[in-house]
Amino acid sequence: MSSTIIAIDAMGGDHGPSVTIPACLQVLGQHPAVQLILVGDTAVLQPILIAHSANKQPRLTLCHASQCVAMDELPSHALRNKKDSSMRVAMNLVKEGKAHACVSAGNTGALMAIARYVLKTLPGIDRPAIISTFPTVTGKHVRMLDLGANVDSSAEDLFQFAVMGAVLVSAVDNIPHPKVCLLNIGEEEMKGNEQVKQTAQLLTNFKAINYTGYIEADAIYRGDADVIVCDGFVGNVALKATEGVAVLIKKLLKEAFSKNLLTRLLAWIASPVLKSLGKRIDPANYNGATLLGLQGIVIKSHGSARVHAFAHAVEEAVVEAEKNIPQRIRDEVEQWLKPSSREIL
Amino acid sequence: MSSTIIAIDAMGGDHGPSVTIPACLQVLGQHPAVQLILVGDTAVLQPILIAHSANKQPRLTLCHASQCVAMDELPSHALRNKKDSSMRVAMNLVKEGKAHACVSAGNTGALMAIARYVLKTLPGIDRPAIISTFPTVTGKHVRMLDLGANVDSSAEDLFQFAVMGAVLVSAVDNIPHPKVCLLNIGEEEMKGNEQVKQTAQLLTNFKAINYTGYIEADAIYRGDADVIVCDGFVGNVALKATEGVAVLIKKLLKEAFSKNLLTRLLAWIASPVLKSLGKRIDPANYNGATLLGLQGIVIKSHGSARVHAFAHAVEEAVVEAEKNIPQRIRDEVEQWLKPSSREIL
Repeated sequence: MSSTIIAIDAMGGDHGPSVTIPACLQVLGQHPAVQLILVGDTAVLQPILIAHSANKQPRLTLCHASQCVAMDELPSHALRNKKDSSMRVAMNLVKEGKAHACVSAGNTGALMAIARYVLKTLPGIDRPAIISTFPTVTGKHVRMLDLGANVDSSAEDLFQFAVMGAVLVSAVDNIPHPKVCLLNIGEEEMKGNEQVKQTAQLLTNFKAINYTGYIEADAIYRGDADVIVCDGFVGNVALKATEGVAVLIKKLLKEAFSKNLLTRLLAWIASPVLKSLGKRIDPANYNGATLLGLQGIVIKSHGSARVHAFAHAVEEAVVEAEKNIPQRIRDEVEQWLKPSSREIL
Repeated sequence: MSSTIIAIDAMGGDHGPSVTIPACLQVLGQHPAVQLILVGDTAVLQPILIAHSANKQPRLTLCHASQCVAMDELPSHALRNKKDSSMRVAMNLVKEGKAHACVSAGNTGALMAIARYVLKTLPGIDRPAIISTFPTVTGKHVRMLDLGANVDSSAEDLFQFAVMGAVLVSAVDNIPHPKVCLLNIGEEEMKGNEQVKQTAQLLTNFKAINYTGYIEADAIYRGDADVIVCDGFVGNVALKATEGVAVLIKKLLKEAFSKNLLTRLLAWIASPVLKSLGKRIDPANYNGATLLGLQGIVIKSHGSARVHAFAHAVEEAVVEAEKNIPQRIRDEVEQWLKPSSREIL
């Protein structure tokens, strides 16, 4: 494989091929060295490609899969009964070396279960984690993990998340020694639950990571940290709360500007400013979470993603494939997670 | 005590009496039946009262306390060594029946430790919880607990939080059968950690509470729930994330409107609209968290609260005192937490 090849679960997500296909065409238009494999029911996909006059696009190939994983399907059910699903077939392409990464907007639980079964975790990693980006006031983003793959993470799990997060950020965001923080309910040493306190100890003793201490959830958006580590239950709440507040403020802003004729006129005049703000906090620009810790690259798009957002997730896959993230984690983890290295340091 | 009397830790918070005194005067001006007791160093407080021409205000009395609890002091240290602190003396006034409630903007950990020691928890309640309000798109607020008093809450703890939260909301917000939700990382039954799943079972079996199921963190702001129950670590992250995102969006809005002369002119024209929005999401309007489950009313103000925000916390104390929340919880909990009641239902 000379160019970067990404396998796309074309059937996944709330909108399926009506979003995944235009998004893929957008990515192909912007990345001349990228090839995409659309995985799904070719009887469904082919007509949509023709409608987009894209059936002759040489860098876009089809790969048939007869099944779909439903958004509310139990992961265990999908794992057992959907061996020819678009999600699983896309994952198989990664496993077989026919694609460098796969992207799906489908059922997160099923995606994680299938990824663990098909691709397996990297040596030294007990549990994969979900990592994604959050906006900050400085303009640069911060990456946080775990965002919901695990609940009740142990200190050792959190420590491994920190190592994996540091490797990803260092490679993808080009930050040589990313600042790693632990999400906590206070900045003082005495604060937090046992897992967090023990993880702080592990990270303090482990000099290969630039651990800079506890961070509270309001500081996520300040841009002081490069990687924020937490349990998946907590991270998922932080992620969803962020989305919820953004929706709330957007709605209040709209209400305030549609109160009467004068405010509506103001909204029209101010629309370029409001649009530029909307762009800065548009969740589409943060779409594409990585299932980190696997022997292959798996990117999860938000289920409700539209074209621009899904394209962003595919682009995350392209960058991670070009940087060969799993191999980097494997190398670093082998080095870093050696018992001797952790005892000596 | 015929009128409502509130004891104020006048020295607490980042700004001390320069905020607490003007806030108290504001509350007295708006609530003719309220009396306030300012607790703190009278040598400090008296001159500030004189400067505000308030030294003759008949509904404002002073109560001397020679010590202060520092914002970063260990709770155990404050408990042992600060027996004459403004925080503790204010709490004693509640304990002795000389005040109906107390309010402090001081160190949360110390306030909780002193409250548990001085006032004790209500019979049947194992751990007090912190409850406060969040804005929603519907315009009404929602109350959530626990926001950080406890980490690693058991299912029984979460169940008790649900009972206490329902009593508070029913009395203070005048909602006869408040909708109680459990914060989780998905709405499906299989989602979540063990504590949440077990709590769902307890609440489903307990018909005295209007339990309506799981809620995800983005739905906090939708106004579907009246009470949201979670562990204190998780709740604190949700609360702080909310604050952090609001600060981020405010800053981006300001940036967008100060890009050039034209946008600055727009900001000036649109300022009434932007101000009305600011008011809707102003954290000052949500200031004042209740330490719920104690034999007395304790309200915690944000440490950084300014006058308007601190006054809001005092007003929360007034309402809870008028509604006699601890007695209501005691009555309901005695009824509801009876083993027989829980077995039958």
